Amino acid sequence: MVLVDTLPPCMSGPLRFDIIDRCGETQARVGRVETAHGGFDTPAFMPVGTRGTVKGLTPEQIRSTGSEIILNNAYHLLLRPGDGLVARRGGVHRFMRWDGPILTDSGGYQAYSMSDINAVDDEGVTFKSIVDGSMVHLGPERSMEVQNNLGADIIMAFDDCPPSVDPATLNESRKRLAGKRGGPHAKGYDHAKRLVEAHDRTKKWLHRCVEAHRRPDEQALFGIVQGGTDLELRRASVEAVCGVDLPGYAIGGVAVGEGPELIREVVEHTAPLLPVEKPRYLMGVGYERDIVAAVKAGVDMFDCVLPTRNGRNAQAFTREGRLHLRNAKFSEDDAVIELGCDCAACGGGFSRSYLRHLFQVGEMLGPTLLSVHNIRHFQRLMLDIRRAISENDWSLLLGAWPVLRAQYAPATGEGVDAAGEK
Amino acid sequence: MVLVDTLPPCMSGPLRFDIIDRCGETQARVGRVETAHGGFDTPAFMPVGTRGTVKGLTPEQIRSTGSEIILNNAYHLLLRPGDGLVARRGGVHRFMRWDGPILTDSGGYQAYSMSDINAVDDEGVTFKSIVDGSMVHLGPERSMEVQNNLGADIIMAFDDCPPSVDPATLNESRKRLAGKRGGPHAKGYDHAKRLVEAHDRTKKWLHRCVEAHRRPDEQALFGIVQGGTDLELRRASVEAVCGVDLPGYAIGGVAVGEGPELIREVVEHTAPLLPVEKPRYLMGVGYERDIVAAVKAGVDMFDCVLPTRNGRNAQAFTREGRLHLRNAKFSEDDAVIELGCDCAACGGGFSRSYLRHLFQVGEMLGPTLLSVHNIRHFQRLMLDIRRAISENDWSLLLGAWPVLRAQYAPATGEGVDAAGEK
Repeated sequence: MVLVDTLPPCMSGPLRFDIIDRCGETQARVGRVETAHGGFDTPAFMPVGTRGTVKGLTPEQIRSTGSEIILNNAYHLLLRPGDGLVARRGGVHRFMRWDGPILTDSGGYQAYSMSDINAVDDEGVTFKSIVDGSMVHLGPERSMEVQNNLGADIIMAFDDCPPSVDPATLNESRKRLAGKRGGPHAKGYDHAKRLVEAHDRTKKWLHRCVEAHRRPDEQALFGIVQGGTDLELRRASVEAVCGVDLPGYAIGGVAVGEGPELIREVVEHTAPLLPVEKPRYLMGVGYERDIVAAVKAGVDMFDCVLPTRNGRNAQAFTREGRLHLRNAKFSEDDAVIELGCDCAACGGGFSRSYLRHLFQVGEMLGPTLLSVHNIRHFQRLMLDIRRAISENDWSLLLGAWPVLRAQYAPATGEGVDAAGEK
Repeated sequence: MVLVDTLPPCMSGPLRFDIIDRCGETQARVGRVETAHGGFDTPAFMPVGTRGTVKGLTPEQIRSTGSEIILNNAYHLLLRPGDGLVARRGGVHRFMRWDGPILTDSGGYQAYSMSDINAVDDEGVTFKSIVDGSMVHLGPERSMEVQNNLGADIIMAFDDCPPSVDPATLNESRKRLAGKRGGPHAKGYDHAKRLVEAHDRTKKWLHRCVEAHRRPDEQALFGIVQGGTDLELRRASVEAVCGVDLPGYAIGGVAVGEGPELIREVVEHTAPLLPVEKPRYLMGVGYERDIVAAVKAGVDMFDCVLPTRNGRNAQAFTREGRLHLRNAKFSEDDAVIELGCDCAACGGGFSRSYLRHLFQVGEMLGPTLLSVHNIRHFQRLMLDIRRAISENDWSLLLGAWPVLRAQYAPATGEGVDAAGEK
C-alpha cells in the first residue's frame, strides 16, 4: 500500500468517493464509490444491461461475476417499456431486481448512432423510433426527465457526440459507422467546425441538464467531456464541463472508430485534467490494454459491451487472448474455457466442446455461460489492476495477463477483431 | 401413510424401485427410483433437455426447480454433436454437467415426427437429417448404440409409433401433425392395419433392442407399449412387451393428436396392466389434469415440453390456469407470476410487468425465468400429488389446484391451447 497525497473522502451530492491507494509512478488510484444502493470498488468495470437486463443473465448471475455496478441505456428504456412505466414500477432497480448501483447513459449516443437522425440542433436530436417509426425528441431536459424516471444512482449529462475523427480519413467500414453519427453526409461537412459545435452544445446542454435535474440529492449527475481527437478542444471541454461542480466527470466520444493509439492519446491527455478528487469515467472502452492504459492515466470507471456482445457471438476472452468457440478445433476439447478461472462456466466444468455444441445448435445457454465468463474475465482484470496499484507493481499484472503484452491483432487475423472497436 | 400390499424393493438391472405409499382408492403410488446417478421420487416429472440442455437453464437452475431427473433426445444428439462425440466426452452427464439421473428416448418418435420419412420398414426408419440433408438410418440396433454412447441411466426401446387415431378423422391441423407420423399419405392407408403392423414391429424390435443393448448393468432399458386408441391392441402390446423382463415399461403413442378424453381412456386401460412392481412411464404427457388422471391409473413417470416450450412463448402456468404474459393487461402489473410460488422467478420478485417487457423486446432472460417458473409449477404439482397419495386424500389437491377443476378450454378461447396437445 502506497499512500501518496491522501485526499479526504469526496462527498458530492449523493455520492461519496474515497481514494484508498495511489500508484506513485502513474496517475492510477484505487478507490471506493458509495451510492444509496451500495458501493463499488474502483477502477470498476460495469457490464452493460441495455434494456434493463444484462442479456441472458439473472441478477444473481451478474453478481456471481463480481460486478458491483451495471449500466442501463436510457435510449432503449425510454422507447420500451417507457421511462414513465419504469417510474411507476418504483424505478429501474426494482424493475429489473438489481439492488446494487446502476448508471444510465443519457440516450444521446444511441440516438445518434442507432437512428436515422431527422434533425440535430441546439434543442437536441429528433429521431425515428426503431420500435414504431414515430418521431422522438431527446434533448437535455427530456434526457434528465427520462433518467430521473429510471432512477439510476449515477446519471449522465446529455451531450453532443460528434464523430471523433474526420469521416473522410476513415476506411469504408469505419466510415459507415461514423457516418451515422453527427451528420457527415451533409454537404460541406467540416469536421473541425463540427467538433467545436459539439463542444459548445455539450457545454450549454450541461447547464440545462443541471437546471432540469429534479433529483440531485438522490442521483449523481456526471458531466461529459467531448472534443474528439483535438487535444486543445479536449482541454477546453474539460475547463467548461468541470467548471460546473458535479459528483463526477466522464470522457465521451472515445472509441468510436479512431483506433487504439488515438484512444490512448486522448485519454492520457484528458484524464489527468479532470478533478483528482472525483470519479472519472471513460465511456464505452474497451479491450484489456485500453483499460490498463486508461487506469494509468487516472480513470476509475469503465463500461463496455465487449464481454456480453462477443460472448453471445461465441467469443471467449482469456488472459492469452480470445477464443472463437465455433472453431472446429474445439469440438473435442475437454478443457474449460480458461484453466484457473473461477467463473460459473469454468468453475461449473463446462467444456469448450460442450460450449461449441451449444453455439452450433443455437442454444441460449451458450451466450449465457460465455457472458458470465467474459464479464468475470474483466472483473478479474480489474481485481489485478487494483492490486497492481495498491502494490505499486505492474509487473505481476503483465505476467498474469499475456494479452496485455501482445501486439494488437489486425482485423483479418484469425478472426481476432481489431482492438479498440466497440 | 397408507401401506397397502407393501412390495419388496424391485431390483432390476441397474435400477431399484421402492414403492413407499399407495393410495387405497386408486392405483396411484408414491415411490423412489434409484440409479447410478442418484434417485428420484415418483410420481416424477422430467423436464426435456432436447439437445443436452434444458433450453436457457444452467444445471443449477434446473436443480432449483426441484427436478431430479431430466430427459434428453437421442435423435437430436445423434445428429449434433453426434453420439460418438458425446461418448468420447465421457457420456451425456459429464458433457452437459448434470450429475443426476437422465433418461433418453430412442429417437424413433422424432425421426417420425420431425423428418420427411424416406422409408419405414422392418429395419427401422430412414430419414433426411434436418442438419445437413444427409440420409440417416435409425433402427433398433442403431438406437441402442446411440443410447449406449450417450450413457443415460434409463434408455428407451426403439418402437414403431403410428398415428394414434385415423388421420381421416382428424381436423386439418391435427391431420397435418399426424400426417407426418406413419405414412398416412400413402395410397390405401388402412389405419387398423397400420396399428397392428406397428404393434408387431414394436414387439420384434424390442427383442432386437435387448440383444443389441451393450450396457444392461449400467443402463436400464424400458419397453414401450403401443396400440393407439385400440384398447384390445394395447392389451396385446402389454402382453408382448411385458413378456420381456425389463426394469420398467412405458406407454407410448399417447397425446399425439387424439385429445384429452382418449388419452385418459387409453392410459386408464393400459397402466394397470403393466407390472405393478416396476416403474411405469407415460411418454410426452402433458397438462396438469392429464398427469393427475394418469397417476391415479398407476403411472410413475412423466415428461413434457409444455413448461419449457410454452415458457419460451411467454405462457406462464399457474394453479388457476395459464397467463399469456405478452398480453397488454400485464404491462403495469407489479405482481409476481404467482403469489406464493417459491420458484427463482417468483421468489426473486420479478414482476409480470418486467417479464412482459423482456418478452416484448425479445430478451432471453424472459424465456429463462418463465421456464424456471413453469418447471417448478409442475414439480410443485408432483409434490402435492405425492402428498395426496400418501395421505389418501385428493380433496386438498383439488382445492389447491383450481386448474384441475376447470373445463378444458377450447383451442380458440383467449389464446388458451387445447389441452392434450404436445
